[in-house]
Amino acid sequence: MSTFGKMIEISLFGESHGKAIGIVISNLPGGIKINFDRINFDLQKRRPKSNISTSRQEKDLFQVVSGCLNGYTTGSPLTFIIPNSDTRSKDYQPNILRPSHADYTAKIKYNSFEDYRGGGHFSGRITTPLVILGSICSQLLERKGIEIGSHVSSIKDCNDEVFGIENISNDLLKRLNLSDFPVINDSILESYKEIILQAKDANDSVGGTIETAIVGIEPGYGDPFFESIESLLSHLLFSIPAVKGVEFGKGFEITNLYGSEANDNFYIDNGIIKTKTNNSGGIQGGISNGMPILFKVAIKPTASIGKPQHTVDFESMTETTLNLVGRHDPSIVPRVIHVVNAITAYAVLELITRKDGFSWIK
Amino acid sequence: MSTFGKMIEISLFGESHGKAIGIVISNLPGGIKINFDRINFDLQKRRPKSNISTSRQEKDLFQVVSGCLNGYTTGSPLTFIIPNSDTRSKDYQPNILRPSHADYTAKIKYNSFEDYRGGGHFSGRITTPLVILGSICSQLLERKGIEIGSHVSSIKDCNDEVFGIENISNDLLKRLNLSDFPVINDSILESYKEIILQAKDANDSVGGTIETAIVGIEPGYGDPFFESIESLLSHLLFSIPAVKGVEFGKGFEITNLYGSEANDNFYIDNGIIKTKTNNSGGIQGGISNGMPILFKVAIKPTASIGKPQHTVDFESMTETTLNLVGRHDPSIVPRVIHVVNAITAYAVLELITRKDGFSWIK
Amino acid sequence: MSTFGKMIEISLFGESHGKAIGIVISNLPGGIKINFDRINFDLQKRRPKSNISTSRQEKDLFQVVSGCLNGYTTGSPLTFIIPNSDTRSKDYQPNILRPSHADYTAKIKYNSFEDYRGGGHFSGRITTPLVILGSICSQLLERKGIEIGSHVSSIKDCNDEVFGIENISNDLLKRLNLSDFPVINDSILESYKEIILQAKDANDSVGGTIETAIVGIEPGYGDPFFESIESLLSHLLFSIPAVKGVEFGKGFEITNLYGSEANDNFYIDNGIIKTKTNNSGGIQGGISNGMPILFKVAIKPTASIGKPQHTVDFESMTETTLNLVGRHDPSIVPRVIHVVNAITAYAVLELITRKDGFSWIK
Amino acid sequence: MSTFGKMIEISLFGESHGKAIGIVISNLPGGIKINFDRINFDLQKRRPKSNISTSRQEKDLFQVVSGCLNGYTTGSPLTFIIPNSDTRSKDYQPNILRPSHADYTAKIKYNSFEDYRGGGHFSGRITTPLVILGSICSQLLERKGIEIGSHVSSIKDCNDEVFGIENISNDLLKRLNLSDFPVINDSILESYKEIILQAKDANDSVGGTIETAIVGIEPGYGDPFFESIESLLSHLLFSIPAVKGVEFGKGFEITNLYGSEANDNFYIDNGIIKTKTNNSGGIQGGISNGMPILFKVAIKPTASIGKPQHTVDFESMTETTLNLVGRHDPSIVPRVIHVVNAITAYAVLELITRKDGFSWIK
Repeated sequence: MSTFGKMIEISLFGESHGKAIGIVISNLPGGIKINFDRINFDLQKRRPKSNISTSRQEKDLFQVVSGCLNGYTTGSPLTFIIPNSDTRSKDYQPNILRPSHADYTAKIKYNSFEDYRGGGHFSGRITTPLVILGSICSQLLERKGIEIGSHVSSIKDCNDEVFGIENISNDLLKRLNLSDFPVINDSILESYKEIILQAKDANDSVGGTIETAIVGIEPGYGDPFFESIESLLSHLLFSIPAVKGVEFGKGFEITNLYGSEANDNFYIDNGIIKTKTNNSGGIQGGISNGMPILFKVAIKPTASIGKPQHTVDFESMTETTLNLVGRHDPSIVPRVIHVVNAITAYAVLELITRKDGFSWIK
Repeated sequence: MSTFGKMIEISLFGESHGKAIGIVISNLPGGIKINFDRINFDLQKRRPKSNISTSRQEKDLFQVVSGCLNGYTTGSPLTFIIPNSDTRSKDYQPNILRPSHADYTAKIKYNSFEDYRGGGHFSGRITTPLVILGSICSQLLERKGIEIGSHVSSIKDCNDEVFGIENISNDLLKRLNLSDFPVINDSILESYKEIILQAKDANDSVGGTIETAIVGIEPGYGDPFFESIESLLSHLLFSIPAVKGVEFGKGFEITNLYGSEANDNFYIDNGIIKTKTNNSGGIQGGISNGMPILFKVAIKPTASIGKPQHTVDFESMTETTLNLVGRHDPSIVPRVIHVVNAITAYAVLELITRKDGFSWIK
Repeated sequence: MSTFGKMIEISLFGESHGKAIGIVISNLPGGIKINFDRINFDLQKRRPKSNISTSRQEKDLFQVVSGCLNGYTTGSPLTFIIPNSDTRSKDYQPNILRPSHADYTAKIKYNSFEDYRGGGHFSGRITTPLVILGSICSQLLERKGIEIGSHVSSIKDCNDEVFGIENISNDLLKRLNLSDFPVINDSILESYKEIILQAKDANDSVGGTIETAIVGIEPGYGDPFFESIESLLSHLLFSIPAVKGVEFGKGFEITNLYGSEANDNFYIDNGIIKTKTNNSGGIQGGISNGMPILFKVAIKPTASIGKPQHTVDFESMTETTLNLVGRHDPSIVPRVIHVVNAITAYAVLELITRKDGFSWIK
Repeated sequence: MSTFGKMIEISLFGESHGKAIGIVISNLPGGIKINFDRINFDLQKRRPKSNISTSRQEKDLFQVVSGCLNGYTTGSPLTFIIPNSDTRSKDYQPNILRPSHADYTAKIKYNSFEDYRGGGHFSGRITTPLVILGSICSQLLERKGIEIGSHVSSIKDCNDEVFGIENISNDLLKRLNLSDFPVINDSILESYKEIILQAKDANDSVGGTIETAIVGIEPGYGDPFFESIESLLSHLLFSIPAVKGVEFGKGFEITNLYGSEANDNFYIDNGIIKTKTNNSGGIQGGISNGMPILFKVAIKPTASIGKPQHTVDFESMTETTLNLVGRHDPSIVPRVIHVVNAITAYAVLELITRKDGFSWIK
């Protein structure tokens, strides 16, 4: 299934080299003014650029097929379509299984009828419509003072600063959201790019981590057990291709602490209950506690690399060597970060409407 | 919501110090012989024991309320109830917020009407019925040759061996499943216990990690995007209280590798396509590839500790010091591991029935 | 599945002659004061009574297992259990298929492992917990000025008056809700009972129709297509055993009218847009228009009758004659009507929370 | 929401006079050869024709946007788009509420931002993509020997023969499926057309009923309570605009029978258990019993009529007279029947995959 959502249901479609990709967004109220410049700005951030990305150039010229009249949502399903243009399907061989891609699993699942060209429905390109979705959701969340922002917290073994009680603010997030390649400490950016370009030169690829913060969300959203904030967010984050890990607050590192170090003590700040530390990442018992919600995702190195790889020809069932040509990102991290922001915005809007419904959206 | 499931819907209920806890399991076929000894064995593993656990003793004597006649499922909703017995509600003060518990978030969400006694519905005790669920699911999965097993991969900074291409097997998992406190390398067990007891003596607590393997699952289960195996599993795993991180295959560590190191090269073994490494954790494009599915979860140190903690009295809105009495596990890891196994078994049964339906269950 | 609900999820369990029946109601907010007298009053209305019902006497003494503390909801799953007491399982022969019961279909679906005693999970008795659910939902809806009421609009070919623009009011519905056997025109009641008793004397049974009104619901709830009010209500109404038809407004009769007769013309009444007629039953395009929502359901004659019936012995696969003993209602209509009210109240609460969320419930 | 489905999720989008309408169909297996001629044939049946329909001519030239490669499904979401062409938006006045249309309810629900042109998302035109869906589902069901067919059982007060134990057969259904205006007794067709044309001449409209049969479905599909066949089918049928009633088997008429007349007695026919009558409509306890599944739906007279109608101007909040120009069907019944067949085919495919999964589809 490429559908999700209880309050705002989304249906994602398209293949990398098919006619078009797109999304249907159901159940948004009528009368929302959509800021299309903002959508284009957000799409532009995800688009490959300069020498650190693939040379495939997609203009992402989207069309609004339904659900929008004179710039406002009509309340009916809102459908966006993005035609594919710059495709080079002949670069793809249907039967040579690319390691750590979905080629093999797709063949098994779809009886070899999958659209193998450019990764088909498994391509990162399919996340483009999610950026449109996220842009609209963010526009709505800002009415509640909720801001979502991320930074590339590491590329390979090189690390940015982290979000903390001190440095986190709406302003920081807004600054990050203006950037194609957002980092907290600007001086790290050159190191990141250098690592990526070195990998590119070596016909190889690198991964990294993305840290995200949600600021301005009031306490009381979410649920224990199966609708915990962690469950909802991780479900959506792990649907992004290349994500291999998700952790909240201190995450895996918390296992190295004593309880007395890990616990977030409460105090009162101007009549508001806060915690001195935020190792819980703003969530307790699956429910927001009013502190920033913090999480980190692991993005694997791009599976497509220029180096020769040992693999299998699915048709002849013989082992062979794969020499990928095609066009690939030496690191997908600076592009996936915008998808992480987008899907997070959608998750937060789901979270809020599950409790408050839609009446707050005018 | 404390409900989940598309094919086999579960509904979890109960509070730690209420009358009873339980679960309704809907849509299991009729005619499944339930092995109650096996359920009791699995429950016993999760039960607190010896000096490394809480002294609260619950016998977990469950009652089958519906859906089972003469030892076989009837096909109607299968309901289990476990009465609560050994409760000491007077140990709990309703208004002193326990740090890193759900006390504060519950008060906000439920307008202070939550059952605060023993953590109410947020208590780890509520996971007991999940062990019953998992036991039944495992019994069904074994008919397909699927085995699920976990080991405590770390307690604080002390680590067990990890699952790998070489050591993983049905037999290893079966051995782990016989143990209350499963580890791969038996010699690590004493170190683990020592760390836990040291924490206990210091009125403190420790966390750890759990690594899980699913062996015997055929390729082709799961979906890209919102029904990826990672999405399904992480959704359920993060619904377990105390889980702060989930990673698949190499997880966060994969971000330190080059693509050429991270990619799992294909080869042919006796006519079956396999991968030489399993950094992907048995999943590509959200779909099983026939290799063992591997993931790791981070369990935080128990939030309940004996040490005095700074916190807030919610009623008087003043800061205060909390001195917890009550009974607590100095580490919840050796108990949560059985819940991780249980919820994984349920997830795998969901996964399989979403594709194959129920006709394979006789 | 015996589960339903997007905002308030319910899970129904139990078999007629099993240990107990019950329901789990998930996602109700904390702090709702439950009126238990009202629940008992509503249960009493559904209970068999006098000479027109079965002689099986169930006290419906329910227990609150979870989700309620000191009379208020805690916000956690609210679970009710009703132990079965007055069962006579030996009246039931497992293999003689009772015509127009679910005996045959259950055997096929559940591989003959179904609990056949008293109809098992197919029994009308399983609707008892729905009355508890409906009672709670009604209590909440009254805070919004919404009243739901029904009358027995026909027993066999004998008809009560119908709801119309003139006679319908909160007061009428409140009066109907006080009655075990609600009718608009009191003089029809004796005729109804006479028809039922004649059928009883003849070892036979009769059916009838129930007309329901929902008053006080504001315009704008519901959706076109798959979440239309009609879709939601019919889905739930057809889940009640014995319901064979559902129609809204003029229903099937509207097919005999010209469009110019069927259309509901708009006018303005004290600044509020209303319709002169209400052939649409308060719904246009799947959405409430502010007029009373009206629908009618058809209830078949009780399938259990004393008369000998030709049927099949499933085990020996031979034809045979069935002579039912057991205890049966000569007409189930005066009991089902309370289930129709209950499920309608639940449907309306779903409808409202899907749009408005839960913040209006204090 | 305009989404539905547990196993095969559909997402419907578009507005009558918008850029395009369409549907996303998720979770169909890969490798299904789609018969496009059959889709076009089915679309053609629904298309307005001759003098008994609207003069709006839509060619329904659909485009496959995703999910299909070389004529076979890829397993990824299958998306169809149908551009709108023959629109005359200036015929529509945004503020004069058309009686018994969704104009008023849409304004309330969508804050007057709805696309009012041609009924927007509420238009019957939006059901066109459902015919494509139904065509594909029927193609799959035929592999299981399941045939679905309908006839116009009445136009106003003129009635066709009904489906019965004797006349129903795959052959009859196949014959009905070849016709634009299917009836059992051909001689009734002229009467039907005459009634429709008389209404048209009078600037009025008429409704009717549609009776549908599902033949070849094995016993054991469906569930008691909330996933009963009746619940599933009625949910989908009531999502079709203009449907006001749904009844199964004898439906409302069964309330006039004694139990001894209504019950379907079992007998054995060549080793197969059947019922002598089929008043239950092939369903007992929500589950198929192997007999043909039978139901009837009531279609109201087209709300758009040429006669002047009293109504309200929503903007000025004054009463006024509406003189509709535009193009309308004097009876929508002969067009809706093809949508009823389509949605039924989809419902049956849902039903079967919920139990059997997808492995039977090669």
